Amino acid sequence: MARKYMDDSLALHTDLYQINMAESYWDDNFHNRKAVFELYFRKIPFGNGYAVFAGLEKIVDFINNFKFSESDIAYLRDELGYKEDFLEYLKEMRFTGKIRGMKEGELVFGNEAILQVEAPLGEAQIIETALLNIVNYQTLIATKASRIKQVLGNEPAMEFGTRRAHEMDAAIWGTRAAFIGGFEGTSNVRAGKLFGIPVSGTHAHAMVQAYRDEYTAFRKYATRHKECTFLVDTFDTLKSGVPTAIKVAKELGDKINFKAIRLDSGDMAYLSKEARKMLDKAGFKNTKIVASNDLDEYTIMNLKSQGAKIDSWGIGTKLITAYDQAALGAVYKLVSIEDDNGEMVDTIKISANPEKVTTPGLKKIYRIINLVNNCSEGDYIAMAEEEPQKEERLKMFHPVHTFVSKFITNFEARELHHDIFVDGNQVYKLPNIFEIKQYVKDNLSLIWDEYKRSLNPEEYPVDLSQKCWDNKMNHIEKVRKKVLKK
Amino acid sequence: MARKYMDDSLALHTDLYQINMAESYWDDNFHNRKAVFELYFRKIPFGNGYAVFAGLEKIVDFINNFKFSESDIAYLRDELGYKEDFLEYLKEMRFTGKIRGMKEGELVFGNEAILQVEAPLGEAQIIETALLNIVNYQTLIATKASRIKQVLGNEPAMEFGTRRAHEMDAAIWGTRAAFIGGFEGTSNVRAGKLFGIPVSGTHAHAMVQAYRDEYTAFRKYATRHKECTFLVDTFDTLKSGVPTAIKVAKELGDKINFKAIRLDSGDMAYLSKEARKMLDKAGFKNTKIVASNDLDEYTIMNLKSQGAKIDSWGIGTKLITAYDQAALGAVYKLVSIEDDNGEMVDTIKISANPEKVTTPGLKKIYRIINLVNNCSEGDYIAMAEEEPQKEERLKMFHPVHTFVSKFITNFEARELHHDIFVDGNQVYKLPNIFEIKQYVKDNLSLIWDEYKRSLNPEEYPVDLSQKCWDNKMNHIEKVRKKVLKK
Repeated sequence: MARKYMDDSLALHTDLYQINMAESYWDDNFHNRKAVFELYFRKIPFGNGYAVFAGLEKIVDFINNFKFSESDIAYLRDELGYKEDFLEYLKEMRFTGKIRGMKEGELVFGNEAILQVEAPLGEAQIIETALLNIVNYQTLIATKASRIKQVLGNEPAMEFGTRRAHEMDAAIWGTRAAFIGGFEGTSNVRAGKLFGIPVSGTHAHAMVQAYRDEYTAFRKYATRHKECTFLVDTFDTLKSGVPTAIKVAKELGDKINFKAIRLDSGDMAYLSKEARKMLDKAGFKNTKIVASNDLDEYTIMNLKSQGAKIDSWGIGTKLITAYDQAALGAVYKLVSIEDDNGEMVDTIKISANPEKVTTPGLKKIYRIINLVNNCSEGDYIAMAEEEPQKEERLKMFHPVHTFVSKFITNFEARELHHDIFVDGNQVYKLPNIFEIKQYVKDNLSLIWDEYKRSLNPEEYPVDLSQKCWDNKMNHIEKVRKKVLKK
Repeated sequence: MARKYMDDSLALHTDLYQINMAESYWDDNFHNRKAVFELYFRKIPFGNGYAVFAGLEKIVDFINNFKFSESDIAYLRDELGYKEDFLEYLKEMRFTGKIRGMKEGELVFGNEAILQVEAPLGEAQIIETALLNIVNYQTLIATKASRIKQVLGNEPAMEFGTRRAHEMDAAIWGTRAAFIGGFEGTSNVRAGKLFGIPVSGTHAHAMVQAYRDEYTAFRKYATRHKECTFLVDTFDTLKSGVPTAIKVAKELGDKINFKAIRLDSGDMAYLSKEARKMLDKAGFKNTKIVASNDLDEYTIMNLKSQGAKIDSWGIGTKLITAYDQAALGAVYKLVSIEDDNGEMVDTIKISANPEKVTTPGLKKIYRIINLVNNCSEGDYIAMAEEEPQKEERLKMFHPVHTFVSKFITNFEARELHHDIFVDGNQVYKLPNIFEIKQYVKDNLSLIWDEYKRSLNPEEYPVDLSQKCWDNKMNHIEKVRKKVLKK
């Protein structure tokens, strides 16, 4: 459709209040004050014991291309009435700050910064919405995929959800996140093309219907395709689909590789067990059974507990939409700001909800690896100037139930943040998708199984240093006295 | 990130099996057989009484631009190993068929075709995935938005969900769908730019934190912005936020329009009632109260039942992700196919799940308007050659519980499908977004309130004509005899 303004930039992929705040900052000559924002979520989704960070590659693209286009400026002027002086500022705006953050594929937990943006206030504000939009979705799906893989082990899982995804970006970035999280491939060909993810798929019910019966359809499919997975539930799985697949495979012998049958409806436990018997009896012991049909980690666990004979899993809707918890609630909070004298001062947001109170200041995050067993003891958030790696004996305590504490010796404090952008320039080389996927696997081997359980996992410790905790308490006290006067 | 293949086409935004089926059809010279597919969902989401169709504009764009790019072909050849002969066919492929369908904004119910694709089999197959991806998401959100508006009546609702949306397309197409469904505006500036949707927003907690206190922040905001909505919950809504907003507004007097305060956390019922009293007492009776914070139709109903004094609603996560049911399950089913003699023959898909059995044949859908009260009696699906509008007395009966029936006289049978594409050319002029929004309103006035109730609405009748029902039963019988031999 012909539009008045071209879709030629993502700079306006933001909330209007960001523009309005930027305008006030600019008007007050406050826009270039250095600000530190942290992007983090409070609660791991799905009741899982960990989350898997995804989205960095797209964020890097977004930042590298960040620039208001002519049409953006025209829209802001002509339709929203912004004045020329402020628009001049926006026209010249590029991202000039620093972004530190976790590597894509890092395991991440509640209340620790995934990304830290240290930049002129105006810039840091305007990019907030896009960063959240990207991280929230991609991390949600990578986490869901990893969670599903925990119950599947080495059995292959394919992402099949494009038709139910939330529009097109979700389909392709979601399947990328699923691949990172442990899935083996996707049905989405565009995602295969863009990201190099393995693609798979054979035929649908429509082909059987088009040829009127399974026998003709399977034979026609096999004429052009040596690798054959036959979909067997168009009419009746056990009475028609499986016997016909076996018949065709026997007739064609070596001409095809009868790789699998696919079940897409009905009772997967019963059907897979019966189909397995039929295949085995006919001599097709290596022919696999692929299942798909509204699967998620719960149904998979239940099917397995009933002895279902399923070798490979196609997972669509429940993965790509994160159906049981369709949003991750990451936020982006100001923790430090330059004052009139050019000094950085920490800042806090108070809330009636204690878990929504922010932790002030520029911080660093460490994963504390116990060098005896090479397993993580938890994460440790310290003020930027602290050097926990130099401590002999590190005290870790729960940030709410502070009496829960332990001392760690013989550890490595592995910093989780890396410089991604410095002075607006990308300084981080993005790994490829296979490296990211491997990184997730390596990371998972560093945490105990108790955090990887699908149901009721233990809570992984994310602790504050004493200094960080004291700083937070002092700020709470200050606000009570100064703003709330109590 | 530099990619091996450019993202320069959406033709591969499809499932791999569509390509594999197309290859078999082409190999068998079956690809140009005329096929009829219907796109429909079985169940209205959220337990709502109706759904609102959205997505047509994007589909029209997709079809008009449908063409495999050089990089698509290179990927299929080099990475997936497709042969040159087949790739030649894909290279030349454009959509050459017919698409009939509902107007965007049409009210739609279960088991009636939203779109009907009548095209060469290969083409119809390859476009399936993208069509479902678009319709499923946009219709889901338009329906959710309309549902939320049913409980809000004339109170304004704004879409605030970009940060929680499933990546960027969902944010912008979702907010467009929300606008169609009845929302008044959005915070997403890019959606405002692309679609002409009104945008709104003022400032965030970060601004209060940046200026260290609410008084300074509100004054700074007001310096550049005459229209002021102050966010009052950064520290403490009633002790600090509201009194400070009132103080600033009194000091600035006519210099600003103290439009609203915004509540974003805490108990909305209590806080809004207390804030209302404070505003009224200070003489700001026209200052509105805007609420946002994980709202949906249920929380809104409950807040209203507790007498909350909220005038305007910002709705994010629960709308843009359709949180309580994050997927619509529309499917795309073959209902008719050309045979060896060039005749169209109907086709059916059987399932152990009775509601998944398809209804064969080329059909038309009518909304039966009772001319006495100008309200709809239900929808009526007939074979394409039938002319229900010419009948004196129309029998409508439930397609499952067939004894539930009624006779209608003095009616208009309004056809719901329109030609969108004919011979691959767009013949339908897309309405603008305001016309579509109005169309939804007009349509809602045609159905009884019992279908618009949020909880436990009545089931709107979607009936089959006798001929259509008989045809379906004959096909079921045929399959039983021929394929299942029983």
